[in-house]
Amino acid sequence: MAFGLVDSLATTDALSAIFSDGSLLQAMLDFEASLASVQAAAGVIPQRAADAIRAAATADAFDAEAIAREARESGTIVVPFVKALTAHVRAEDSESATFVHWGITSQDVADSAMMLVLKPARTVLAADHQRLERLLRELSDRHARTVMLGRTLLQPAPPITFGLKVAGWVAAIARSWKRLDAAFESALVLQFGGATGTLAALGDRGPATADALANRLGLGTAGAPWHTQRDRLGALVAASGLYCASLGKMARDIALLMQDEVGEVSEPGGGSSSMPHKRNPAGCAIALAAATRTPALVAAFLSGMVQEHERAVGGWHAEWPSVAAVVQSTGAALASMTHVIGGLEVFPERMRSNIERTRGVVFAERAMMLLAEAAGKEIAQDVVERALHESRAKERTFREALVGIPQIDSLLSAEQLSSIDSPEEYLGVSEVLRVRLLSE
Amino acid sequence: MAFGLVDSLATTDALSAIFSDGSLLQAMLDFEASLASVQAAAGVIPQRAADAIRAAATADAFDAEAIAREARESGTIVVPFVKALTAHVRAEDSESATFVHWGITSQDVADSAMMLVLKPARTVLAADHQRLERLLRELSDRHARTVMLGRTLLQPAPPITFGLKVAGWVAAIARSWKRLDAAFESALVLQFGGATGTLAALGDRGPATADALANRLGLGTAGAPWHTQRDRLGALVAASGLYCASLGKMARDIALLMQDEVGEVSEPGGGSSSMPHKRNPAGCAIALAAATRTPALVAAFLSGMVQEHERAVGGWHAEWPSVAAVVQSTGAALASMTHVIGGLEVFPERMRSNIERTRGVVFAERAMMLLAEAAGKEIAQDVVERALHESRAKERTFREALVGIPQIDSLLSAEQLSSIDSPEEYLGVSEVLRVRLLSE
Amino acid sequence: MAFGLVDSLATTDALSAIFSDGSLLQAMLDFEASLASVQAAAGVIPQRAADAIRAAATADAFDAEAIAREARESGTIVVPFVKALTAHVRAEDSESATFVHWGITSQDVADSAMMLVLKPARTVLAADHQRLERLLRELSDRHARTVMLGRTLLQPAPPITFGLKVAGWVAAIARSWKRLDAAFESALVLQFGGATGTLAALGDRGPATADALANRLGLGTAGAPWHTQRDRLGALVAASGLYCASLGKMARDIALLMQDEVGEVSEPGGGSSSMPHKRNPAGCAIALAAATRTPALVAAFLSGMVQEHERAVGGWHAEWPSVAAVVQSTGAALASMTHVIGGLEVFPERMRSNIERTRGVVFAERAMMLLAEAAGKEIAQDVVERALHESRAKERTFREALVGIPQIDSLLSAEQLSSIDSPEEYLGVSEVLRVRLLSE
Amino acid sequence: MAFGLVDSLATTDALSAIFSDGSLLQAMLDFEASLASVQAAAGVIPQRAADAIRAAATADAFDAEAIAREARESGTIVVPFVKALTAHVRAEDSESATFVHWGITSQDVADSAMMLVLKPARTVLAADHQRLERLLRELSDRHARTVMLGRTLLQPAPPITFGLKVAGWVAAIARSWKRLDAAFESALVLQFGGATGTLAALGDRGPATADALANRLGLGTAGAPWHTQRDRLGALVAASGLYCASLGKMARDIALLMQDEVGEVSEPGGGSSSMPHKRNPAGCAIALAAATRTPALVAAFLSGMVQEHERAVGGWHAEWPSVAAVVQSTGAALASMTHVIGGLEVFPERMRSNIERTRGVVFAERAMMLLAEAAGKEIAQDVVERALHESRAKERTFREALVGIPQIDSLLSAEQLSSIDSPEEYLGVSEVLRVRLLSE
Repeated sequence: MAFGLVDSLATTDALSAIFSDGSLLQAMLDFEASLASVQAAAGVIPQRAADAIRAAATADAFDAEAIAREARESGTIVVPFVKALTAHVRAEDSESATFVHWGITSQDVADSAMMLVLKPARTVLAADHQRLERLLRELSDRHARTVMLGRTLLQPAPPITFGLKVAGWVAAIARSWKRLDAAFESALVLQFGGATGTLAALGDRGPATADALANRLGLGTAGAPWHTQRDRLGALVAASGLYCASLGKMARDIALLMQDEVGEVSEPGGGSSSMPHKRNPAGCAIALAAATRTPALVAAFLSGMVQEHERAVGGWHAEWPSVAAVVQSTGAALASMTHVIGGLEVFPERMRSNIERTRGVVFAERAMMLLAEAAGKEIAQDVVERALHESRAKERTFREALVGIPQIDSLLSAEQLSSIDSPEEYLGVSEVLRVRLLSE
Repeated sequence: MAFGLVDSLATTDALSAIFSDGSLLQAMLDFEASLASVQAAAGVIPQRAADAIRAAATADAFDAEAIAREARESGTIVVPFVKALTAHVRAEDSESATFVHWGITSQDVADSAMMLVLKPARTVLAADHQRLERLLRELSDRHARTVMLGRTLLQPAPPITFGLKVAGWVAAIARSWKRLDAAFESALVLQFGGATGTLAALGDRGPATADALANRLGLGTAGAPWHTQRDRLGALVAASGLYCASLGKMARDIALLMQDEVGEVSEPGGGSSSMPHKRNPAGCAIALAAATRTPALVAAFLSGMVQEHERAVGGWHAEWPSVAAVVQSTGAALASMTHVIGGLEVFPERMRSNIERTRGVVFAERAMMLLAEAAGKEIAQDVVERALHESRAKERTFREALVGIPQIDSLLSAEQLSSIDSPEEYLGVSEVLRVRLLSE
Repeated sequence: MAFGLVDSLATTDALSAIFSDGSLLQAMLDFEASLASVQAAAGVIPQRAADAIRAAATADAFDAEAIAREARESGTIVVPFVKALTAHVRAEDSESATFVHWGITSQDVADSAMMLVLKPARTVLAADHQRLERLLRELSDRHARTVMLGRTLLQPAPPITFGLKVAGWVAAIARSWKRLDAAFESALVLQFGGATGTLAALGDRGPATADALANRLGLGTAGAPWHTQRDRLGALVAASGLYCASLGKMARDIALLMQDEVGEVSEPGGGSSSMPHKRNPAGCAIALAAATRTPALVAAFLSGMVQEHERAVGGWHAEWPSVAAVVQSTGAALASMTHVIGGLEVFPERMRSNIERTRGVVFAERAMMLLAEAAGKEIAQDVVERALHESRAKERTFREALVGIPQIDSLLSAEQLSSIDSPEEYLGVSEVLRVRLLSE
Repeated sequence: MAFGLVDSLATTDALSAIFSDGSLLQAMLDFEASLASVQAAAGVIPQRAADAIRAAATADAFDAEAIAREARESGTIVVPFVKALTAHVRAEDSESATFVHWGITSQDVADSAMMLVLKPARTVLAADHQRLERLLRELSDRHARTVMLGRTLLQPAPPITFGLKVAGWVAAIARSWKRLDAAFESALVLQFGGATGTLAALGDRGPATADALANRLGLGTAGAPWHTQRDRLGALVAASGLYCASLGKMARDIALLMQDEVGEVSEPGGGSSSMPHKRNPAGCAIALAAATRTPALVAAFLSGMVQEHERAVGGWHAEWPSVAAVVQSTGAALASMTHVIGGLEVFPERMRSNIERTRGVVFAERAMMLLAEAAGKEIAQDVVERALHESRAKERTFREALVGIPQIDSLLSAEQLSSIDSPEEYLGVSEVLRVRLLSE
C-alpha cells in the first residue's frame, strides 16, 4: 500500500502511488541500472555487469520495510539498498556485483531517485491544473454579468461580478502554476557527484557519464553536483507552497459563500456521519487543510538548507518527508478544488437578494462620491450619515432614506438618485479587469 | 506495511506500527465497540447490537486503502469507516447495524482514536527517555573530572568538564520530558460530544456515557467536548517539539565533537556507500533531521488551531499528519540518541590535548582577572595582549609568554603563574553545577 | 519612540514600551549595577566602583542607535554596551571602570536583561487576561439560555447556547493562560555563568553571587547557566503561541458571527477609509493577524534551539526578534479581544431567527435518533430523507414535512412531533457542560 | 530612530532607514500626493487640491506614534493617516481637504506604500549582492588550485579545491539572486482598486488613473487589483528566504572552517566581552541567525495568504511585520557575509596539513576503485580494510600500510601506489566544475 490513513486527506491516489515504496525503489533501481548501462557503453564496466544489474532492477524483489529499518542505522536508505541490490546481482553473477553503484555516492542515488519521482508528480499536477484552469475560465465567462456583494473584512461592500471574483482565482493559480512549473523545470536535474562532488572516482569520465545518464533518465543536467546547494529544490517546494496558498484562498471563499446564511454557491461536498441534512464543504476542507500545513513544510525545507560542507549532517536527511508532503498536499488541494469547481452550483438570485438584503447601504460610498463632488466632503458625509441612520432606524432602503433628505434634490439628479442602488450601475471596470485577468 | 521509505528516517519500528493503518483502524473500532458496550449496559441499545459490533471490530477485516480513498470525498475517514463497519455488522445481524455509531459524530471517533494511538506512543517515548536519561547520568558521572575545552561560537574558551556538558544535556531532556509527559497526561482525553458538542442525541445520558466510555478505553475525561478547542493537543505537539529540540542540541554537540579534527567523542555511526574509511554520525544526523522538521510541524498545528465554531473546515483536517509526524520524529530522534549515547566512545586524552593545542590562550581570561584585580583593567589588558601576541608570534605557550613579560613578577605570584594554564585550576564551580543539574 | 508603523498592529502601547530601546538598555544597566553592588557587598570589588557604576546606569545617557550599529560588528549588543558603560564610568572615576562587567560574559547580560523585560510583560498580559476572562464569564452567564445554531464546517447544525460557545472560549484561554503563566514562572531566571558557564572567573564565589544578584533583580535562579539550553524560554514562547491561537479561534468565531448575513454579534470595530456604512471587525482582524504570525515565530525559536556547545553561533543570535514579536503579538491579540468582548453586542433574536431560517432541517438528526429507536436506522433514514426532500421542494418546515408523511403517527408521538424543531428541547447537556467549563 | 535594539542584528543601517516610520509615512504621502496630481491632470479633482495635498505631504509633520496607536483601533494605519493628512490639508485650504484619498481605499495606500519602500530595499540588496558575488568570484579564482579536505557529514572525505567550494557558494547565491530579483520585478506593482477592487468610485477613469499613477511612482502595473491575491508578494518573500538560506549555508561552512581545530579560514569577526584571546565568527553568526528566522517568516506570510473575499480579516493585517523582517534579515545576512568574504583570511597550508593529518585514509575510496577494477570488489574491500586497519593500529599512513600488504604489487602499479595519497591526483573534475559554476 502506498499511503496511510493518517495522511489520507493529504494526498491523492495518483500521488500516493508516485511516492510509494515501490515507486521510489524502482526509481533508485532505474538510476543504478541506467548508470551501469551508460558505464558499460563507455567501456568503464563490463556489459555483462550492466545486463546483470538491469536484470536485478525490479522493485518487487526488494523488501522495502527491511531497507527502511536498516536505513535508521546508516542514516540513509541507500546503504541498505545498495547492499540488497548487490546481493541480488551477486546471486546471479558474482563478478558483476563488483560494478553495482560504481564510482558514485549514496546521495547521487537518493537525490536522483527523488527527481525521477517528482517527474511524474509534475505531470499529474499539470493535468489537474489545466483542468481546473479551464473550468474556472468557463465559470468566469458564464458569470461575467452575475452581480454579487463584494465583501471586505467579511462585511458587505459595493458589488462585484462573480465572474470577476473567479477571474481573480484563475489568474492567481495561473501565475502560481507558471512559477511551479518553471521551478520543476529547473529542479528536475540529475545528481551525480561522487563522494565529495568532484567525480574523482570516475577519473575524467565523470561529466560525460553524467550527461549520458541524465539523457537516459530524462532528467536535466546541473552545471555541477548540488549535494549541499539545495536552492533549486527549495524553489520548487516554495512554489508548491505558493500554489497551494492560492488554492486555499479559493477554498476559503467558496466555504464562506456556501454558508447557509450566504448560500451563493454550493460545492459537491460530502455528507455527515450524524447529520442527515448536511452537505459539508468537504473539498474546500481538504484544500484548506493543505494550505494550513504547506507553509510550515516550506519552512522545514528552508530550515534544512543550511547544509554543512560537501554533504550535510541532518539538513539533507530532513528533506524527503517535507518534499513528499508538500507536493502531495498541493496535489490533494488541487484535485479537491478541481472536483469542487467541476461540480460547483451557483445561485445568482441569492447573490442578488443578498445585495438587496443590505437595503442598499453598500452604495453609501457611491452616494458619498457623488455628493462630495457636488458639495464637498463635509456636506456629503453629513447627508450620507443621515441617510444611513434613517435607513437603519426606519428599516427603509438607503435610497428611500436619501430621497427623504430635504436638500437632496439640489445635490443629486433624479437619475442619480433612482439608480443609486442599482448594482449594475456600480460595477466600475469589473468587466475590463475580468478580461485582463483571464488574458494575463 | 506501516511506514514508507520516504519517511524512513522520521520514525521508528515501534512508532510506525503505532501510527499504522491497522493500529488506527483498531483504535476506531475499539472506540465504536466500547461505546456500544457502554450503551448496552445503560440500556440505550440492545446488548445483542453491542455484541455484534464488538464481533465486527477487527481491523484486519477492513480495507484501509478503500477507506482512505473514500475519505477524500467526504473529508474524513470516519464516514467511510462507519459505512464499512455498519456493513460488516449488517452482514451478520441486520438489526444491530442500526446501533453502530449511535448518537455521536465523526470527530468523536477520529479524535478519540488518535488519543488511543498516542497512548502507546507515550509509553514508547517514556521507555526510551528513561533509558537515555540513565545512560546520560552514568556518562556524566563517569566524566565528572574529564577536562575539555569549553567552546563558544565554535571557538575555544576556558575549560569545562565533559561531565558538566553531559549534565547540561540530561537536565534539558529531563525538563523537556517532564513537560511532554505532563502534556500527554492532560491531552489524552476522550472526545465525546455529538454533532455540536451538546450530546443532544443522547438526551441526558451523555455525560454518564462519556465517563463510562473513557474509563473503558483508559482515557481521561475533559470537562466538555473539545472539537474546536485544540490547546491540549497543541500543548502536546509543542512539548514534543521542545523535547526534540533538546535532543537536536545534544546531537549537534556530538556531531561537532566527532569531527576528525576535534576527535573527542565518536558515536557508533553508520558507514558510507562509497568511502570505506568513514564512520558517519548517522545517529546524530537522524536526530538533527528531526530537529530541523519538528519546529515547522509545531507551527503547522498551531496554525490550524484557529478553528471555526463547533467544527472546523480545514484546521482540524490538517492535524493528523502533523501530530503523527511530530511524535514519530521526536521518537526517531530519541531512539537515535539513545543508540548514540549507549555506544558513545569518549577520548579524554584528545580532550586534554585539544586544550593544550591552544597553547593556553584560553586562559587569557583568567590572567585578565588576576591582573585586573592586582593592577586595574588597563594594565591587565596591556599585559594580556602582549602575552597573546608573543605567544602567537613566537609559537610559545601563553604561560611562557606571560612569564617573559618584565613586570610580571610584581603582578602575579609564582604559584599563580605556574598554574595559569592548568585546566583543573580553572573549572570554577563546574562540579557544583554538574551535581545540581543531575539533581534537578 | 518605542515601536514602528510597520509593526503597529503587532504590539500595544504598554508592550512596545517594555521592549523599547530605553527599557532594554535600562534592564542591562540594572543588571550591571546590581552585579556591582552584590560584588561590592561581598568584597569582590570596591564599593566605590559599585557606586560609580550605579551612578552611570541611566539609559538616557546611552546612544541606543550607536550601540545597535556597533552590535552588527561584534555580533552582540553587549560588547558596545559594555564599552559605552565603561566609558561613562571612566569619565567619572577611572579606577572604578576596571570593575564594570566583572567576571561575567556578554550573554549573562543579554539573557538576564531579556528576563527583566519579560517580567513586566507578564504583568501586562496577566492583567489583560484577567479582565478578558472576567468579561467572558459574565457574557457566558448572561447567555446561558440564548439559543443559536451550532455550526460545523460552516454549515448549520443542531443548536447550542451562546453561553456554551463563550464558555468554550473562556475555558480555552484559562487553560492557555495557566500554561503561559507557569512557563513565565519557570523561565524568568537569571543568566549567570561567565565565559563557558563555569563561573570560573569568580573563583568559588559564583553561586553565592548568582543567588544574591537574582534576589536583587527579582528573578528566579536556575540550577546552572542555560547559555545553550533554551528549553525554558522555548516553553514560554510556545505557550504564548498556544494562548494566541486560542484567542485567534475566538476572533474567527466572532468575525464569522458578525458577517452581515449572520448578524448574531457585533464587535465595536473600526470604520473604513472609503465606505461610510461599514463597521469592520478590526479587533478580530488584529487578533487573527497575531494568530497568523505567532505559529511561525514559535517555529523560529524552536529552530534556533539547536545551539552549539557552550555558546551558539547564530541560534542564540536569532532569538530576540522572535521572543519580542511573539509576546507582543500575543499581547496585541489579547488587548484587542478584551476590547472586542468588552464592547460586544449580542443579538439573540437574530440567533433564533437564523435557526428558523433553516426550516428546522438541523433537527433531522433528532428525528433520525427518535425514528431509529422506534423502527431501525433504515426506516429512519428513509423517513428523514423524504421529509428533507419535501421540506426543500415545497418550502415547508421540516416538521410540517414530517407530519405529512403517512406512517409518521405510528413512529413518533404527537408530542415528539410537535416539539421536534424546538431548539430548547434539543440542547442536550449544554448547560451542564457550560457550568463545567466555567468551573474548570 | 528607525530600528531597535531588540532587532539590531536583524537589519542594517540602510534597510532600517528604508523601513522606518519616516520612510513609510513618506511613501504613503507620495502615493496620496501623486494620486491627487494625476487626478487633477485628468480633471477629476481641482489642481488647487492637488497642490494643497502635495504641500502637506511631508512626513516630518506627522506623528507616527499617534498614527500607530490609532491604527490599533481601526485595524489599519491608513485610517488615522488619512485623517491626519486631511486635517493638515484642511488647515491650509478647507475645500481641498475633500479631495484627499479620492475614490480609493485604505489598502490601495498601504500596499502601494509597501511597494515604494521595497523598491529602494531592492536597490540596496542588489548592490550588496553584486559586491559579494564579485568578491566570491575573485576568491574562487585565487584558490582554483588550493586543495583541501572535502567533508561529508562533518567527516573527512576525498579532497576538493577551495576554489570549487567557493564556486558552489557563488553559483547558489547567483541563482538565488536571479530568483529574488525577478520576484521583485513582478511584485513591485501599484495597488489600485478602490473598495472592492472594481474602481467603481472612479467611474470609468480607474484604469487610466492607475496607469498614470504607477508611472509617476515608478511602479509596475498589475492587470487588476490584488487585494487578496498575494502570490506575487509571497513569491518575493519566499525568494528572499531562499537567498538567505544560501547565505546561511556559506556562513555555516565558514564558521566550521574557522574552528580553531580546523583553522582553514578566518573571518574578520568580533571580539568577546570577557575573553581577550577570542575572534568570534560574528559575521557568520548574524547570517546564521537570519537563516534561522527567515524560513518561519516565509511560512508566516504563506499562512496569511488564505485571504477572504475582496479584503481579508487578519491575513492581510499579518503581512507587514513578516515582509519587513524577511527583507531586512536577508539584507543583514548579505551585508554580514559581504563583510566576512571581503576580509576572509585563507590558510592553504592548514588545508593541506589537515589532509595529511588523516594519514591518507580519505584516499581509501580511490584505492578501492583501482583495486576493484583490477580484482573485483571483494578483494578490493579486503585489501582496503586491511590497510585501513594497519594504518590505524600502527599509526602509519594509508599508503605505507597499503604498500606493506603482500600481494599489492600484483594489483596496483608502482605509480598508482606512490601517488595514491596525492590530493592533486584525486581532484576529479573539480576545475571543470568550478569553471562551469562560475559561468552559469
